[in-house]
Amino acid sequence: MGNIKQVAVLGSTGSIGRQTLEVISAFPHRFGIIGLAAGKNFNLLAKQISQFQPRFVHFEGKKARLSNAEYKFLSLEKIASHPDVDIVVVATSGKWGLKPTLAAVKAGKRVALANKESLVMAGEIITSEAKRNGAPIMPVDSEHSAIWQCLEGETQKPTKIILTASGGPFYHYSSAQLNKVTVEQALKHPSWRMGRKVTIDSATLMNKGLEVIEAHWLFDMPFDNIKVLIHPQSLVHSMVEFIDGSVKAQLSYPDMRLPIQYALSYPERLPNPKLPKLDWETIKDLTFEPPDLDTFPCLKLALEAGRRGETYPAVLCGADEIAVELFLSKRIKFTDIARLVGRVLEEHQAISHPTLEEILTADNWARERVMQLTGGDNQ
Amino acid sequence: MGNIKQVAVLGSTGSIGRQTLEVISAFPHRFGIIGLAAGKNFNLLAKQISQFQPRFVHFEGKKARLSNAEYKFLSLEKIASHPDVDIVVVATSGKWGLKPTLAAVKAGKRVALANKESLVMAGEIITSEAKRNGAPIMPVDSEHSAIWQCLEGETQKPTKIILTASGGPFYHYSSAQLNKVTVEQALKHPSWRMGRKVTIDSATLMNKGLEVIEAHWLFDMPFDNIKVLIHPQSLVHSMVEFIDGSVKAQLSYPDMRLPIQYALSYPERLPNPKLPKLDWETIKDLTFEPPDLDTFPCLKLALEAGRRGETYPAVLCGADEIAVELFLSKRIKFTDIARLVGRVLEEHQAISHPTLEEILTADNWARERVMQLTGGDNQ
Repeated sequence: MGNIKQVAVLGSTGSIGRQTLEVISAFPHRFGIIGLAAGKNFNLLAKQISQFQPRFVHFEGKKARLSNAEYKFLSLEKIASHPDVDIVVVATSGKWGLKPTLAAVKAGKRVALANKESLVMAGEIITSEAKRNGAPIMPVDSEHSAIWQCLEGETQKPTKIILTASGGPFYHYSSAQLNKVTVEQALKHPSWRMGRKVTIDSATLMNKGLEVIEAHWLFDMPFDNIKVLIHPQSLVHSMVEFIDGSVKAQLSYPDMRLPIQYALSYPERLPNPKLPKLDWETIKDLTFEPPDLDTFPCLKLALEAGRRGETYPAVLCGADEIAVELFLSKRIKFTDIARLVGRVLEEHQAISHPTLEEILTADNWARERVMQLTGGDNQ
Repeated sequence: MGNIKQVAVLGSTGSIGRQTLEVISAFPHRFGIIGLAAGKNFNLLAKQISQFQPRFVHFEGKKARLSNAEYKFLSLEKIASHPDVDIVVVATSGKWGLKPTLAAVKAGKRVALANKESLVMAGEIITSEAKRNGAPIMPVDSEHSAIWQCLEGETQKPTKIILTASGGPFYHYSSAQLNKVTVEQALKHPSWRMGRKVTIDSATLMNKGLEVIEAHWLFDMPFDNIKVLIHPQSLVHSMVEFIDGSVKAQLSYPDMRLPIQYALSYPERLPNPKLPKLDWETIKDLTFEPPDLDTFPCLKLALEAGRRGETYPAVLCGADEIAVELFLSKRIKFTDIARLVGRVLEEHQAISHPTLEEILTADNWARERVMQLTGGDNQ
């Protein structure tokens, strides 16, 4: 038992959470599940509990239905910082990731971070706390995992990070065509299977903008040295350039289980027959092109919010989340997402070096403002 | 002075040697030239001596013309193993690299190895001596440097090495077209500027076969796990696959100064404004395809010789060198190179676990046999 790492999976019923449990199941002598946390999907959580027998559970819904069992109900933060937890996988969605991520880094835990908002909204706080407490942050995004893998063993910081983007399902659409895009079309991502919110963010390129901000914090890299390249085949997950001009790239088929597994097993790599190997008999062509910021203004908005810092990235996240929800419920058009986010960012009165509470307040203000602008109310 | 690494450049007037001196000139506070050695080009060697003021010199030609100076004439092996030498760059061509490489590894020197034949012909002897004496071998080939860079920081051996090849100037030629290829056409390489012998070996793909054998010894990798991929853009210099399916690639414009500099500066990377940075505004497309072993039989012959081991790789090198010379002097056709090398390999009576002398005897036999088969004599 001594060598088994005890993993808490926060957001275990989401796309990343489920894939994390799949990876962990493949290595029972390496990893155990000590904690599971979910927001809404009670049925799946109950199944996971009976399969993995965690000691700690968190559920946002009614707890009574999960009683009479061998586990303790704890808050996300209590699970994230419990002394018996070795690795915290933060796969909760949206702003719900911030507090547990902060609790985990304050407790010096190894954090496998799939929640984008933690670093986008509170990068300054979380990276400085992680540094202070010696908590390693292991990125679970395919792009950041690629960068991290390319940096392993290097003695110097890179001079440039090149984040690749599939471009999503609409990459060569005109603005006029984007105006008519349906929810069903937007949910069909050409290369990745992901949750609904991330899939829409990929189609607007907002997702890539959030990743640039994340990369800025994770790798302490100025925004000017982070470039985005459209790479529709989604095989090169990102690249890194060094001071001598040498570039390293990481490649694999688009499969989140690889970055999840690497974040868990690092610095080792584990043999997993379920992870596909690149077949160079069928891969003929890798293409690259610079992104079109005019047709995909969400990327531009995110880059600007990242550069400006303060509470702008929090407003970006809050506004985008509500706008995407409104698009998914067919109350606004695809192109309204960027329009609304841009409008709310413009109106925002930012606070510099914000506290976590100020960040969450800004996020909340942005959500409400989007609702007001679209004539709805924020439940 | 304490931090300056003293470098001996064996083969200083060749293509790699000249580029090595160029790199070293860019970092006068890092590297000094303690030794220079050349085979034939007296005028250039004299210029290099007056510029770099080495303490040790070797020249294959008449020594009298280089006398009255502040340096000592030494043999290649004496220079390679001299106590004051920190790094030995072995850029001598052909079998002339074997003895100095062996002397350098026996003396525990850091060896920047550009000479292919050392490992191809005597890989077993040289890698075991390097291991025994703690002599690090730093590959100077762009492909092996790429592999080495991709392996940095990894805790486990890779599962596969993917060596890329430009394919040379004739890649999509038919066997009939290859039959009519001229020396002038063969010397026009599409992406690399190199010496004449290597350029012809690139056109026949023999060069890639020699690199597979080198990779086998450098990275202790079975031949079955080394794949060759044609990549005409020559930007991805090689790739490495790990046990979890993750692949790392190294990219840069084709410029030998980068692998030379990395072999000298490792584990650090040095800023060199002369080394070009990849421009992703102009790079649109990276293509890959498996090699055509039937049309380019030299690659197949080299892979077979590598797998069989013993004195076969020595015979491969010796026969190829003479065959290429005969092609360059227009005494045989381009397609005769493979035919002659294949014939001589077939006739060869191999010796297992050969000594260095037995390796050189096999090489010599192969050279003489090619001359006999073509009606010439080996002078």
